[in-house]
Amino acid sequence: MEFSSKLLENAVYEMSQLPGIGKRTALRLVLHLLRQHPDQTNKLSLALKQMRSEIKHCSSCHNISDVALCEICSNTTRNDKLVCVVEDIRDVMAIESTNQFKGLYHVLGGKISPIDGVGPSELNIDSLVQKVLDGKVEELIFALSSTMEGDTTNFYIYRKIESANVIVSTIARGISVGDELEYADEVTLGRSIQHRIPFEQSLKG
Amino acid sequence: MEFSSKLLENAVYEMSQLPGIGKRTALRLVLHLLRQHPDQTNKLSLALKQMRSEIKHCSSCHNISDVALCEICSNTTRNDKLVCVVEDIRDVMAIESTNQFKGLYHVLGGKISPIDGVGPSELNIDSLVQKVLDGKVEELIFALSSTMEGDTTNFYIYRKIESANVIVSTIARGISVGDELEYADEVTLGRSIQHRIPFEQSLKG
Repeated sequence: MEFSSKLLENAVYEMSQLPGIGKRTALRLVLHLLRQHPDQTNKLSLALKQMRSEIKHCSSCHNISDVALCEICSNTTRNDKLVCVVEDIRDVMAIESTNQFKGLYHVLGGKISPIDGVGPSELNIDSLVQKVLDGKVEELIFALSSTMEGDTTNFYIYRKIESANVIVSTIARGISVGDELEYADEVTLGRSIQHRIPFEQSLKG
Repeated sequence: MEFSSKLLENAVYEMSQLPGIGKRTALRLVLHLLRQHPDQTNKLSLALKQMRSEIKHCSSCHNISDVALCEICSNTTRNDKLVCVVEDIRDVMAIESTNQFKGLYHVLGGKISPIDGVGPSELNIDSLVQKVLDGKVEELIFALSSTMEGDTTNFYIYRKIESANVIVSTIARGISVGDELEYADEVTLGRSIQHRIPFEQSLKG
């Protein structure tokens, strides 16, 4: 692609760095912005910049938050003895929208996946194990995607806290095995939270 | 969608204002940026801002350019008596990549489309007509998309310059009628530039 403007070329290049956005789509998006009022581009530019530089992670659950302790963790009406372990913020949003869960979350920030270079030390596992060993948790619910990586991560954490006096459960396999959690419908996901089963039982398949 | 962070919500909202990007895709893109080095977001943010505020349009052909007179218009090896009329910069890029055209362009900035509220005064038609009436053009090639709006625009311009001593042609209909110009392959598009036919002949269908 030959551009008549370096500014345009640069904007298209940076846009095409986003996943799933090729050069043609990037050009279409950038030309769209050029046809709109400059305010729209400025707002987008500022929103991205602020988001990246100012966003924080909750000191307790590692969810994305604007304050040190997120809304969910600081909500005293929720059951802080019940902790749901999830992969990322999209899973928190998905579970929250079911209205079936009134405990707290722990966001790992990913799954153990040696092929992608993600080991246990890259994830927020230590702080979770510490929480459990300190006796702050009565029940831990694993709500990772039902994939090989999700199961590996569940098992890794389970081995670390096996000795502690804590109930460990996983969400019911209402979700088809191999499917990603974020695409599940609300009813299925809500039911799988209600029908969670002991982790030992889930190992038997 | 319930967000745990206003900054995140704002970034997702602004991103989802782009055409073809829904809330879910916007969230996926924004979370991707959060996982990358902050530099990537800053570069994207700056590139968009600069592009929107500093980009210029060539004073002669109205193409997007960083300088007052674009590279194509200021290239003295090109034939400035031959002018190709196109809709927008993507069409210029598509024709340039065929290497079949050595004249100049005139970018209209759209097509006449009453249903979208685009009339002749919203497009760069007056400056084109003036160029022709001033005797600066020997041949005018219409290279708009072969749609109802493209044909209407061609015909509107043709009526304005009918009296002038100028050859008016359209690119050959190697491109299927009803298809958009930007998706044509280079060979078809290059051939249609070589095999252009007199406008009067094209009216007979």
